Formats: sequence, structure tokens, C-alpha cells
Amino acid sequence: SQEFKIAVLPGDGIGPEVMAEAMKVLDRVEEKFSVRFARTTAHVGGIAIDREGKALPDTTVELCRQSDAILFGSVGGPKWESLPPDEQPERGALLPLRKIFGLFCNLRPAIVFPALTGNSSLKPEVVEGGFDLLVVRELTGGIYFAQPKGIEGTGPERTGFDTMKYSEAEVERIARVAFEAAGKRRKKVCSIDKANVLSTSVLWREVVERVAKDYPDVELSHMYVDNAAMQLCRWPKQFDVMLCGNMFGDILSDEAAMLTGSLGMLPSASLAEGSFGLYEPSGGSAPDIAGQGIANPIAQILSAAMMLKYSFGLAEAAQAVEKAVEAVLNEGYRTADIYQGQPGEIKVDTAGMGDAIVARI
Amino acid sequence: SQEFKIAVLPGDGIGPEVMAEAMKVLDRVEEKFSVRFARTTAHVGGIAIDREGKALPDTTVELCRQSDAILFGSVGGPKWESLPPDEQPERGALLPLRKIFGLFCNLRPAIVFPALTGNSSLKPEVVEGGFDLLVVRELTGGIYFAQPKGIEGTGPERTGFDTMKYSEAEVERIARVAFEAAGKRRKKVCSIDKANVLSTSVLWREVVERVAKDYPDVELSHMYVDNAAMQLCRWPKQFDVMLCGNMFGDILSDEAAMLTGSLGMLPSASLAEGSFGLYEPSGGSAPDIAGQGIANPIAQILSAAMMLKYSFGLAEAAQAVEKAVEAVLNEGYRTADIYQGQPGEIKVDTAGMGDAIVARI
Ligand SMILES: CC(C)[C@H](C(=O)O)[C@@H](O)C(=O)O
Ligand SMILES: CC(C)[C@H](C(=O)O)[C@@H](O)C(=O)O
Repeated sequence: SQEFKIAVLPGDGIGPEVMAEAMKVLDRVEEKFSVRFARTTAHVGGIAIDREGKALPDTTVELCRQSDAILFGSVGGPKWESLPPDEQPERGALLPLRKIFGLFCNLRPAIVFPALTGNSSLKPEVVEGGFDLLVVRELTGGIYFAQPKGIEGTGPERTGFDTMKYSEAEVERIARVAFEAAGKRRKKVCSIDKANVLSTSVLWREVVERVAKDYPDVELSHMYVDNAAMQLCRWPKQFDVMLCGNMFGDILSDEAAMLTGSLGMLPSASLAEGSFGLYEPSGGSAPDIAGQGIANPIAQILSAAMMLKYSFGLAEAAQAVEKAVEAVLNEGYRTADIYQGQPGEIKVDTAGMGDAIVARI
Repeated sequence: SQEFKIAVLPGDGIGPEVMAEAMKVLDRVEEKFSVRFARTTAHVGGIAIDREGKALPDTTVELCRQSDAILFGSVGGPKWESLPPDEQPERGALLPLRKIFGLFCNLRPAIVFPALTGNSSLKPEVVEGGFDLLVVRELTGGIYFAQPKGIEGTGPERTGFDTMKYSEAEVERIARVAFEAAGKRRKKVCSIDKANVLSTSVLWREVVERVAKDYPDVELSHMYVDNAAMQLCRWPKQFDVMLCGNMFGDILSDEAAMLTGSLGMLPSASLAEGSFGLYEPSGGSAPDIAGQGIANPIAQILSAAMMLKYSFGLAEAAQAVEKAVEAVLNEGYRTADIYQGQPGEIKVDTAGMGDAIVARI
């Protein structure tokens, strides 16, 4: 039977608790689909700072290098918030991981599970029947990484500066991912930019137009980022795939995720060329509820499902996990974050939700 | 009696129609408060391209220079969308006006009028009783104007680039506006940045912290822009004043405005040091409904009220206009965009709404 190596990085806050449930799910998938997941756990984020002196220890990087994929929990918490930004858990772990492993492509689905439309802060008539969009965000370029970047000068003229930059090759690479994804969905790409102000966006738009010619069955539109921020909260159903640079994708994917009302349920994938990827929940480490056993493990479990699909090519197993999640939701299982006290709802804790899902795979 | 000179730039789309109503309101204010508004109209935007060859003709700039304030309608439309970005109505008129007149401070209130909570795309329980926040956006710096900016290279390495940049002096100047404004409101400033990624934001945050010391009665918090995009749609009432750089302010102010459901009602002010300013509706030129006499003139009328207050120091007159707007809304007057067919609503056209407001000043 096939064997895949996974670097398991639970991190901080609710990370370890929800990761434990994802492990149960992988155990079940091993049984059911006769594969083997060789899992090794390592520290990342705040706990790595505490135990090994930095958010991304070399030993953790080495483990990731020897693995086929990274399953990531979440990092950060009040304890480390006063560190310099560079050393903080989020920044100090995620940005270097993206750079080292060339994780240029961030896939962030924003899905309202039809059973959970009531959780969205949008009106019922706006979310009725749910919505399902995918943000494809470039993750290793743009203003996040381009040089120069720094602070210089003194007195009132002391100045902070950053550089936004994209090459044709970078735009083309991420645009192809968006068009491919749209081809398997509702066949629409909306490319987000600020071409009325940014030269980077002028180039971005040109390249996206050129790439679109190779995908004649996919409809391309362009939208300014300010308008996109409005349209998302006015009528999210208008979107299928939103193609964004690093910064705009950061903002809009979070907005879209929050609008679903299912933030604790949304997975994400950060992919390199080839099959390597990092998989993590879209939500944060939720330190306020950590250690209580009440966190929702679904985002972590669906992140594992994305790993099965994108890094291991186990589409069938991935689907089995997704179906199981849908099934428990339809049967009324709810962790505290999505419990609304409606008739038919069954309140469960983290492990209860994990077990219910495992039982349905 | 005092006299003020106004450059009236109606622009495109619904601009001229709603501007006509603002003129009626100014006529009424002249009578009532014994002031004089010497008004001169000029072209801007698409109509200026058609008639004078560019979006911001020199004669228009000259008129503005000789005026105490600019009352701006709105610009843009499908007719000019295929021009190069630099020459398009929005970009070609607004950015140079901001730069030439040093309009560094953009005030964009996002208010849900209590009579109109039903218009928001947010759930009733989220908008109940309305909300009222103010985005203070830096408008002449940041990634909009900093150099270098351009496209260079060839082939796959052809690269678009922009520079984000803020000096201490620039941050301090806009931060003071935010703290002053908060002092007259609910005494909270939330400063938006991305200090975990951008050096510009690290400086931004430092300077805001320092300025805050001069306003001990105002509470300061910081929020990353991605989180702010989420928090706005989760619970907008948490915000009083949001202090933003140019780009983040562009995105978040539009998101906030859309969430109110009252986009056609929101004014904005773009202020220079001293008393000069440009006043314009937050919404666009709405070419789809132009020429039908059905546009909502309230945003334009409230923009005129902001002008009375900020450029002319006529706080009492400004308040009289605002009160008149509130009164007509409470009495049920509705243009098509805010008409919901509820009992007590009176459907009016653009002029009908203008007249109703004038009658209550
Ligand atoms: C922690 C931060 C650097 C990161 C980002 O901005 O990319 C986070 O917001 C995300 O979206 O994964
Ligand atoms: C038209 C455009 C350049 C402008 C901006 O981005 O500032 C507009 O979106 C605005 O907010 O006034």
C-alpha cells in the first residue's frame, strides 16, 4: 500500500485539540483506503518559541523537507503578541514556510454550508441556499516579499517603505491555477486588482487577459479591489473563483470567510509546484476557547481532506471525508460555535464532532 | 453678509441631476442664514474629456484655485472605460485634484440611518438601531503616489512595481485628524495596518501610538486590515473612528459604506490643511439610472452640508441641512433605491426628494 509522509504541526491555542481529531480521521482513511500516513509531529509558532527559541525551528523545517505535505494547526496567542513582528508566531512561522517551500498558491474556499446559512451575518435572502466561492491568492510575491522594504531617515522625515511587485511569470502561474479551478467549477474567474492606481495591477490585468485566451470556456471579468470588498457583502453569489495578488487576497479571503458565518469550518491549502503543500484551517488559534475541548475541528479535518486530494492524489478518500462532514451537519451535530439551539441540533464537543465524522467515513 | 466661492463640478451620470438638488439646498441656506454662495460650474470627468479633451481641464483647476471649496458630483461611465487608466474620468480627475490641492484627509462616514436598517445586507440583529462609524483615510500618500512605480523588463521577467511609503510627518498629520474627530464622537480610534508584514505599517503604528499620548481621553486600538475586513461585516458597531492609510482606507471605507445599505446617502469630504476641501458623494455616477430623474440626491446634499461645516465654518447651517434630511426620511420619503414598499413610505423622484428637504430647512 502507498505511504505518505506528513509533517504534523499542531501549533498553539486550539491547534492541538483540533489536530487530534484530524488524526483520527486519517487513521480511519488508512483503514478504509489501505494507505499509510507516516506522521511526525513538530513544534511551530508560540510553543516553538517557548521550547526551542523561535517560531520556526530548523528541526521543524528539516522535518517538512522530508515530508510529502505539512498539516498545520494554527499559531499565535496573547502570550507572544509583544514580541517584535518578525519573531511573532504567525509572521515568524508562516511567511518563512511559504518562502522556503515555494507555496505560491493559496486556495481558500468560502462556503456557506446550506445547513448553516443562519450563522452568516448576512440577511437570509442574501445567503439563501448558501454560497460557494474560491479565492485563489498568490502567496509568495507582491508586497509581502518584494524588496526594498524598511524604515529609514530621522525625525519627521523618517519613512517606512515597502515594494509591491509582480512579474509576468508570477502572474501567469497563479492565473493558470485560477482558470483550471474555475473550469472544474462554475467557469467564472473574477480577477481583482487596482489597475486604476497601481502599475503592478496594470501588468497583472494584461497577463490575466492573455492567459484567459487558453481557457475559452471560462468567463473572465475584472474588478477593482474596493468594489470587490463591496460586492462580496452585497451579493457574494455573483462570484465563482476570485483571483488575487497576495495582499488583496489576504483581505478579501478573510472577508469572504467571515461572511459565510462558517469561519471555524473553512480549510485552506497553500501549494507549491508539484504536489507539496501546506494545509491549515482558515480561522485562527482562538486562544479564548483553547483547552476546553469545545473547538470546532471541521476546518482542520477539511484541511486534511484537501491534503489527501492535492498532495496525495487521493480524490476518493478526500470526498469520503467531505461527505462525512456534510452528513454530520445535516444530521444536526453542532459544536458550540455553530450551535443555535434549533430543534434537531445535537450539541457536541471537539471529540464528539471528530468521532461522529469518523463514524461516517 | 459672508460670501463663499464654490467650484461646482457636476461631472457625469447622475452627477448633474443630484447636483441640481444640492443647489436648491444652498439657495435655501443663503436665504435662511444670510450668507452668499458664489457658484461657478465647470466640467470634470467624462464630459470634460468629450468637451475639452481631458478629465481635468486646466480651466477647471484654475476655477478650483479661485474657490473656497469644490462641490463634486461623480465621474465615469461605460463610454470612457476603454481609455488608458491614466486618462479615465475617475483616475484622471480625482487623483490630480487630490495632489494639486493637498487633500490629504478623506472623511467617509458610514452611517445606517435608523429609518433604513432594512436596506443593509446584514441581518437585522447586526444593524439594529443603525451604526455610525467614520473612516479617516490618508489621501495623498501611500502606494497611490509614492515613487518608483512602473513596468519594466521583457518576456516572463517583465515586472510591474509600485512603492508604498509613509513618513512620520504624514502619519502624524492624519492621525491627529482621527483623534480630534474621535474626541467629538465616541472616543475610540481603531488604527488599521498590516504591521506583521509591512515596514510602512510598523512605522505607522509607532507614530499613531505616539500621537495617541496627546489624546488621553481617546482609546486607541490597532487592527490588521484583514481582520478589519472581517470585523466590519461581523459587528460594525464595534467601531467609532477607523484610521487608515490610502489603500486600506479605499477598501474598508467602501466595504463599510456598502454594509450600511445606504450607499446612495453617504457624503465624503477630502480636506487640505486650512479650510479648503472637496466634497463628493461616496457612491458612483450610476450611469444605469442617469437621466431618469430617479437618483437619490441625499449623498450630494449631505456632501454640501459637510462643505458648510468644514470649509465655511457654518456648523449651524450644516446641522439644519442634516436635520432636514433626517426629517424627510422619518416622514417616509423614499427615492427608488431606498423604497421598500412598506406602509408609510412615500415614493419620490430626485426633485421631489430635494424639494422635501428644502422645505424642512
Ligand atoms: C499572519 C499573516 C502574515 C498572514 C498573511 O497576511 O498572509 C495571515 O493573515 C494569512 O492570511 O495567512
Ligand atoms: C477612482 C479611484 C482612483 C479612487 C481611489 O481609489 O481613491 C476611488 O476608488 C475613491 O475611493 O475615491
